[in-house]
Amino acid sequence: MFGYKLLKKDCDTKARRGVLKTAHGDIETPIFMPVGTQATVKALTPEQLNNCNAQVILGNTYHLFLRPGYKIIEKLGGLHKFMNWNKPILTDSGGYQVFSLSELRKISEEGVEFKSHLDGSRKFLSPEIALDIQNSLNSDIVMVLDECPPYPSTYDYINLSLALTTKWAKRARNAWNFSVEKDGRYQFGIVQGGMIKELRRKATSELIEIGFDGYAIGGLSVGEPKNLMYDVLSYSVEWLPDDKPRYLMGVGKPEDILYAVEQGVDMFDCVLPTRNARNGQLFTKQGPINIKREEFKLDEKPIEEECDCYTCKNFSRAYLRHLFHSKEILSAVLNTIHNVRFFLRLMEEIRNSIEQGKFSEYKRSFLNNYKKNSEVF
Amino acid sequence: MFGYKLLKKDCDTKARRGVLKTAHGDIETPIFMPVGTQATVKALTPEQLNNCNAQVILGNTYHLFLRPGYKIIEKLGGLHKFMNWNKPILTDSGGYQVFSLSELRKISEEGVEFKSHLDGSRKFLSPEIALDIQNSLNSDIVMVLDECPPYPSTYDYINLSLALTTKWAKRARNAWNFSVEKDGRYQFGIVQGGMIKELRRKATSELIEIGFDGYAIGGLSVGEPKNLMYDVLSYSVEWLPDDKPRYLMGVGKPEDILYAVEQGVDMFDCVLPTRNARNGQLFTKQGPINIKREEFKLDEKPIEEECDCYTCKNFSRAYLRHLFHSKEILSAVLNTIHNVRFFLRLMEEIRNSIEQGKFSEYKRSFLNNYKKNSEVF
Repeated sequence: MFGYKLLKKDCDTKARRGVLKTAHGDIETPIFMPVGTQATVKALTPEQLNNCNAQVILGNTYHLFLRPGYKIIEKLGGLHKFMNWNKPILTDSGGYQVFSLSELRKISEEGVEFKSHLDGSRKFLSPEIALDIQNSLNSDIVMVLDECPPYPSTYDYINLSLALTTKWAKRARNAWNFSVEKDGRYQFGIVQGGMIKELRRKATSELIEIGFDGYAIGGLSVGEPKNLMYDVLSYSVEWLPDDKPRYLMGVGKPEDILYAVEQGVDMFDCVLPTRNARNGQLFTKQGPINIKREEFKLDEKPIEEECDCYTCKNFSRAYLRHLFHSKEILSAVLNTIHNVRFFLRLMEEIRNSIEQGKFSEYKRSFLNNYKKNSEVF
Repeated sequence: MFGYKLLKKDCDTKARRGVLKTAHGDIETPIFMPVGTQATVKALTPEQLNNCNAQVILGNTYHLFLRPGYKIIEKLGGLHKFMNWNKPILTDSGGYQVFSLSELRKISEEGVEFKSHLDGSRKFLSPEIALDIQNSLNSDIVMVLDECPPYPSTYDYINLSLALTTKWAKRARNAWNFSVEKDGRYQFGIVQGGMIKELRRKATSELIEIGFDGYAIGGLSVGEPKNLMYDVLSYSVEWLPDDKPRYLMGVGKPEDILYAVEQGVDMFDCVLPTRNARNGQLFTKQGPINIKREEFKLDEKPIEEECDCYTCKNFSRAYLRHLFHSKEILSAVLNTIHNVRFFLRLMEEIRNSIEQGKFSEYKRSFLNNYKKNSEVF
């Protein structure tokens, strides 16, 4: 009943159509996960998220660990109940945020000590604690604690870091309660190794040997040139087993998602649609537009004529421009609804095109339109 | 078909139950109008406002005059279409904001010159221009331009100010296109006169002589002691004709609304429910609570058990506390939904109690409960 099922492979690319059945419902892949850092996808009610057809969202363990605290969420019935979201939730392990947001990190074999960016209090995260927290949250998909090396890093640094990440992955898997897989909860490993092919290869084999329910590719989209990311991505996906879902963490732009799907990636998350919405950048099939521009002052058209979101069905660009300039909360709400729906609609179209064996055609046609707007590339 | 209809008078108080039929639908009175200053009730979509059972909202002429500009809204089909709100809209005349927000005001017989608080540009408002703007917005209820004297002011100042306000009211009425009343659009006069009975009396007779479709009581809730406001209010309402709606501008707290309904007031507006929501103050039948307090950390209950709003049906106090402390946009959204619904539910209950001839009983019982929370009075 539960588990990942590969439904169809594209004929001329490595794109895949699948489904991951979880305790809180099915995730049709390829899928995009809106980011709900602090137990809310910024600016949206769960009802609005549902109306956007979101299937799964991402929660940030680091943030929830610090506020309100995972014991509180556990007492209140878990993250789904706390935020009133009844569909699947994937939580990261907190590792990435410890290394990007907190101060005074001390990494040891045991785990990582750090100071909260909120109140400076000392906290400790280990592979076992990261798992405990995610269990308390009752996430459907749990990520193992890893270290994500910054770009650029030296071979030696990445090599050392990877050794620790692998040991942590083994400990996390040892602490995992395998019976929950039958209940539709999963633990994913994360492939690190910087931009070094040999280390990525090593990381992948070691993780596969441990054996996870899915595999994430971490450490990409961290400031490296795009062609380098594309290069690392293509071989990294190649080495992963066919019968498990593959998740590219923190990516990304529509063009990156299309490239990654072509390489066989199934899952994505990124703050791009939500964060950019708050800055007035709205995604369209012709490329992103910035709603604050003068040209939209009297524009009666919706953001996109063919979009089925609440914002496009009810409001003009002129109104959205006014809300943005007036710094109204509703600006963030309506812009976020559209951008989230744009990404989810993109994934729906990708899934349809794979089902019809027409992914290459879809990708080509999407990118041709998308590049029309000079803001994009 | 259109017009105001007095449906029922309470037996032992001056409370009234009525209906004002407008081009965009019926307004059941007594009613509370959520404030939508910049073409949005802050933080709410029109759909959420509808789900709160809002019947009519207030728009601010001053703000819309400055941004995006009324000619723009007119070209885009009027305020209803611009903001996608299909029920009635009342707009103020802009006078109050000119005197409270802008700088360098120069009042003349002709009108008032002022500097925009947004960009410092010079603007001019006259009774005729204020009407023009509101016609462009296509408001269902239009207010005449007035001067609202600050509290305290001298007799002489109020007397002079009132003379101008009355002249302006006459000019505004002369400029009014009476045929639109048949289409369900109305023009209201505003009674000023400070806290001076004699001047209020004079203002009222002069306005009645001009003859408006409804009468507002302005210049209250501007910093005067509560018993003074209650005193001025009681005689001011008394002098107004029975067959026209009465609107108490900028009021107020639930206890003030109950007092004013008892005196025969039909319409209210105030930023209290929306502004306080954003500050974490939530209204309940037991008095307001502040959601940021420690005591709600693990509180699984909704804000109010018996409330039928989206927030109370789906979220705990603990979650709302978390959102507030995390400065999430969703905090403002969910809090505003509840507070707006609280005020509209209060008005529904008031209307029901008048219909059943039990308003006094309702008022007494409401206040008994409401005072339980010591934060209130």
